[in-house]
Amino acid sequence: MAASNGGTGRELNQDNPSFMLEAPGKLKYEDRPIPELAEEHDVIIEPKWTGICGSDVHYWVHGAIGSFVVESPMVLGHESAGVVTKIGSKVSTLKVGDRVAMEPGVPCRRCARCKEGYYNLCLDMKFAATPPYHGTLARYYVLPEDFCYKLPENMSMEEGALVEPSAVAVHICRQASIKPGQSVVIFGAGPVGLLCCGVAKAFGATKIITVDINQERLQFALRYAATHSFVSQRVSAEENAARMIKECELGVGADVAIDATGAEPCIQTGMQCLRTGGTYVQGGMGKSDMTLPIMVLAQREINFKGSFRYSSGDYKLATDLIASGKLDAKALITGKVKFTEAEQAFADVKAGKGIKMLIEGPE
Amino acid sequence: MAASNGGTGRELNQDNPSFMLEAPGKLKYEDRPIPELAEEHDVIIEPKWTGICGSDVHYWVHGAIGSFVVESPMVLGHESAGVVTKIGSKVSTLKVGDRVAMEPGVPCRRCARCKEGYYNLCLDMKFAATPPYHGTLARYYVLPEDFCYKLPENMSMEEGALVEPSAVAVHICRQASIKPGQSVVIFGAGPVGLLCCGVAKAFGATKIITVDINQERLQFALRYAATHSFVSQRVSAEENAARMIKECELGVGADVAIDATGAEPCIQTGMQCLRTGGTYVQGGMGKSDMTLPIMVLAQREINFKGSFRYSSGDYKLATDLIASGKLDAKALITGKVKFTEAEQAFADVKAGKGIKMLIEGPE
Amino acid sequence: MAASNGGTGRELNQDNPSFMLEAPGKLKYEDRPIPELAEEHDVIIEPKWTGICGSDVHYWVHGAIGSFVVESPMVLGHESAGVVTKIGSKVSTLKVGDRVAMEPGVPCRRCARCKEGYYNLCLDMKFAATPPYHGTLARYYVLPEDFCYKLPENMSMEEGALVEPSAVAVHICRQASIKPGQSVVIFGAGPVGLLCCGVAKAFGATKIITVDINQERLQFALRYAATHSFVSQRVSAEENAARMIKECELGVGADVAIDATGAEPCIQTGMQCLRTGGTYVQGGMGKSDMTLPIMVLAQREINFKGSFRYSSGDYKLATDLIASGKLDAKALITGKVKFTEAEQAFADVKAGKGIKMLIEGPE
Amino acid sequence: MAASNGGTGRELNQDNPSFMLEAPGKLKYEDRPIPELAEEHDVIIEPKWTGICGSDVHYWVHGAIGSFVVESPMVLGHESAGVVTKIGSKVSTLKVGDRVAMEPGVPCRRCARCKEGYYNLCLDMKFAATPPYHGTLARYYVLPEDFCYKLPENMSMEEGALVEPSAVAVHICRQASIKPGQSVVIFGAGPVGLLCCGVAKAFGATKIITVDINQERLQFALRYAATHSFVSQRVSAEENAARMIKECELGVGADVAIDATGAEPCIQTGMQCLRTGGTYVQGGMGKSDMTLPIMVLAQREINFKGSFRYSSGDYKLATDLIASGKLDAKALITGKVKFTEAEQAFADVKAGKGIKMLIEGPE
Repeated sequence: MAASNGGTGRELNQDNPSFMLEAPGKLKYEDRPIPELAEEHDVIIEPKWTGICGSDVHYWVHGAIGSFVVESPMVLGHESAGVVTKIGSKVSTLKVGDRVAMEPGVPCRRCARCKEGYYNLCLDMKFAATPPYHGTLARYYVLPEDFCYKLPENMSMEEGALVEPSAVAVHICRQASIKPGQSVVIFGAGPVGLLCCGVAKAFGATKIITVDINQERLQFALRYAATHSFVSQRVSAEENAARMIKECELGVGADVAIDATGAEPCIQTGMQCLRTGGTYVQGGMGKSDMTLPIMVLAQREINFKGSFRYSSGDYKLATDLIASGKLDAKALITGKVKFTEAEQAFADVKAGKGIKMLIEGPE
Repeated sequence: MAASNGGTGRELNQDNPSFMLEAPGKLKYEDRPIPELAEEHDVIIEPKWTGICGSDVHYWVHGAIGSFVVESPMVLGHESAGVVTKIGSKVSTLKVGDRVAMEPGVPCRRCARCKEGYYNLCLDMKFAATPPYHGTLARYYVLPEDFCYKLPENMSMEEGALVEPSAVAVHICRQASIKPGQSVVIFGAGPVGLLCCGVAKAFGATKIITVDINQERLQFALRYAATHSFVSQRVSAEENAARMIKECELGVGADVAIDATGAEPCIQTGMQCLRTGGTYVQGGMGKSDMTLPIMVLAQREINFKGSFRYSSGDYKLATDLIASGKLDAKALITGKVKFTEAEQAFADVKAGKGIKMLIEGPE
Repeated sequence: MAASNGGTGRELNQDNPSFMLEAPGKLKYEDRPIPELAEEHDVIIEPKWTGICGSDVHYWVHGAIGSFVVESPMVLGHESAGVVTKIGSKVSTLKVGDRVAMEPGVPCRRCARCKEGYYNLCLDMKFAATPPYHGTLARYYVLPEDFCYKLPENMSMEEGALVEPSAVAVHICRQASIKPGQSVVIFGAGPVGLLCCGVAKAFGATKIITVDINQERLQFALRYAATHSFVSQRVSAEENAARMIKECELGVGADVAIDATGAEPCIQTGMQCLRTGGTYVQGGMGKSDMTLPIMVLAQREINFKGSFRYSSGDYKLATDLIASGKLDAKALITGKVKFTEAEQAFADVKAGKGIKMLIEGPE
Repeated sequence: MAASNGGTGRELNQDNPSFMLEAPGKLKYEDRPIPELAEEHDVIIEPKWTGICGSDVHYWVHGAIGSFVVESPMVLGHESAGVVTKIGSKVSTLKVGDRVAMEPGVPCRRCARCKEGYYNLCLDMKFAATPPYHGTLARYYVLPEDFCYKLPENMSMEEGALVEPSAVAVHICRQASIKPGQSVVIFGAGPVGLLCCGVAKAFGATKIITVDINQERLQFALRYAATHSFVSQRVSAEENAARMIKECELGVGADVAIDATGAEPCIQTGMQCLRTGGTYVQGGMGKSDMTLPIMVLAQREINFKGSFRYSSGDYKLATDLIASGKLDAKALITGKVKFTEAEQAFADVKAGKGIKMLIEGPE
């Protein structure tokens, strides 16, 4: 055991290998300075597994997402779990050696949104691998103790890395206020759409309809958590919605629709398939502007809600759902690679291979 | 006092003059059968004043609103107050002679929406002057007692007729969850927009921004209830929103935006001017489909809500707000005509004259 | 098929044997008039199985519950499922022969509480076997169609009779706003306490603590749905709560406590075992006045909520939870008797035998 | 202008005179060390006016409130407004010279309650003049910038000191979810009870009933914000409640009852005067345990809520309500004394003189 910059912990390695985006299309490894404990409640973590997210790939390809532009080289990665290596002087809930899921965004804690319980809406959020903040694909990463979630013994580190996309799904399902007995339509059977199916089931939804154009994904979703599947045709959103309501016996319409695709036709169909007073949640990213059936939304009093990352309690609940077996995160892992193979893994994700790919921490 | 068809009450007149839409563009007067008490809790009312609503004019001009098509002659009018003339055998809350505001839509009371407290979302609603149901511009109209709201002595019958649009505004402001201290932007300074300003003030909003392109209406709104006014320019919605936020000192954005215009540029600006986590309510009617900034809605977690008519408690609260002086309904009345002059009044409303025009009941 | 008093249906039997409370302590059978369809949406049902509730036994023994006093002979029973035998002229959701769970309380549908979605709080409720209204232990019973819940094929009539106590538990758990991941302490392992354990599990609670003094019941609860059990000692409520928090690893206290006993020491312990901001729901009936730790409630901002019967959506959700296998109602059935053996069954329930006893409808 | 310990600001005085509780019954003045900026977001404030709260007097007389025991000398005072004298290096919302209302409790910002938006329920709260934390009756006091609320020009420093009890009333009224049009019964016409009347009015309550046994206070409350007054008799709570409902025309009962007395008979009457589904909020402090009508609470599904200090948004809203003239805080000020006369002011408050007494900051 050794101590430096105010904390207590293990002797740190003398290097901090990091996997970085140098410029659009250009990845590199670099040995970066070892981060310090900035606050007395901070801990240093060694990430052990990190999932690749669509946003990581998007930054790699485009160098930007909306107004977030990569202007200087940035460490990638934000879906991680790791081991606590050093703790600040006031840390009371963690000890060196603890295995933790790492919540990658730290808000200001002082603005109105933070104090109201919606810290994901904080305008001063520092979020891993969102410019200008570095990500977690490095030997060391610093977080405040309250953004680390201890993994119970029965939960693997790989599952710990899956807490991040699971928390995204938890937040979406909470925005949707999914209640026991409800019917939920989920557009998209990629990682987030699948996890939404799983979380909706854990929340007690009795009818879960997965919508995709890929039959293989639909079959996976049905085995995973969905109760019904639906394939849209090249007809109007109203026609698709009417057929879905009929085939899936949704009566006066679905209680909840969730989009995890970002595709305009899905979004339109999602808005048309709801009952009066139903809830629609936009989870997927897509075009800035779309043609939407606003009078249907207005006159049916649809509750349209956005969903952005995760907020108070989401990460903890995602961890609990996985730990208790209510959400099977493991099933989504379709590949694991060494740290040194990260670039190939990114290329595979870009090519649409598998569901969720994990990268191991540096040796 | 006399009694017939199961109820108790005054001797009824032997005629029931009614102002009807015969076909698109064609109005007429007709003596129609006197309505009967269908249920033991029904009452017969003589409407004394009826406001003209944009929807009445729309049916007159177009013969339809969305899927509601006038297929046979229909009595117009649904913004009414009147005097109870006859009461059913189980009526316990009203007596003959009571002056009441008349809620013009009666739901089925049995479906899931009715039992949940959202009867405005009932699919079996019978709504006055919405085909195929007749309206209130006649000598007699039948309602269940619980859809009649007794006017206190200090409230005039003309104010009673204004309860209907006030209830629309109450419902919009409730959908918006306006809370004391909030900032609210209201697009449109017509009757509903103005009443939204008034209700927002009664709900404790401290900053109320009226938006319109008509300077006269803006001035009226400022005298009426708004604290700030704003005129949109022919620039993008983002630019208009940015300028509004700056000029009206909205900080990180408005808490609430309400559209009472149905116009696409207003709606887009309303969505852009909100803070993260703000609430947008669509009150105005317009085109079925519009281009909307969905990623702004999603990533700022805007709560978009529709607003359709009024539901549980809205009519009562509108009556109370007017009775207690918190909402000045009278100020909106810009004209009053005899029953026999109804057609001219419709023409004036169509021509955009005045704010709210009232038609007296038949002599 | 035959029709009478306005409806359509099967030829009815010419008798209506009923099991009645004649006076406190005195039960009897009587052939009562066959009920008629009072409204066009009514149906006549033949109850096939009826559970015995503590309140039935209480009326038998004491002749009253609070202000509800049995002043003339009353048919007992309100936990029933049966077969539709005749339907009113406007019935559209049921047909003769349908198997239904019967919601035994019909509200006025017109008061503020009914229209807000809380019809269980209606002051004009007509509730089976609550004086002066007759119960369901008869050959025929009349209900409006919307208070009948069709049983899917995979659900037995006996399970249908269990919907009533399950709806009580659903309402309690909804009042408690149980959310996925929460810890819930449930006092009492009788029928309602057990069903609360089951419903809490279906709602996603991850820690469910059953509290009772009867070891056999605790063991049953653990097999049934609880994750932990706790036996109170003869010490103060604070001491019992402190030990529970420690033994059951509740951290800063439980999220939710539910009392299904009505016993003062349980209630006090329930209030003491909660975290700040936790929720307490009073489900059990007991003494009118009790000594309660009001400053603990106030300063920890405990949400105390009552729970009375069931309201909008509860009966349907209870039916769905049983039908989907999320709630095992069958497991609680510990005895079934013929209609002619009802009195012995009441005596057994009074003596505390078994969990839930069912009485078959008349032959 | 000068700077020290990391911040920027005015030259500080070299002394820090403080008004302290040395031991139960024993007050003293002491020159204490000048506090430092502990965090980069901290500011040093010179309190200009401080109100005396019942809790200050209670500590003086008893040396403890519940489990909070004064074990070493403690500076008193927590209802203050002052001038910013020095700002930390990262302060961005305040500048030296700003006049601010001072929120006296700073939570940990890291626990589940803090992150959910209920920081008043934080178990690690540091609250002024609650042992072991010093209060504001001194020349200097340190707060994070986000717990300071800038006073607009039209708001005096004395009114700024009244923000604290106003925030207590705002929190109570928010716990009560007071909505426009509701009827609210408020027990107690002392400072908090009166401010609850004023806040209830600002929240849109149309019937506000003040209850007290002191006729002078009732008359003040009626002039201030109440619409009705009521004096309890020496009869049962049910009888008092029944008479109130009749005299104040509360129909089926009040929507909301608030206790600001802590007295058992008031609390019991408050619970009895509500309609089914009404809300009761316990604001006043009193005996730990009381006899309460639990079955009335349960069967009428009363929402009982505690209220403890204030949380997210309360202080800001209280400031806004006073600044906008919706809440008249000034009217409650019945006396102002110099810092050197603090002990006499405490004695006056203990003797029940006046409504709200203010102490000026040190010269």
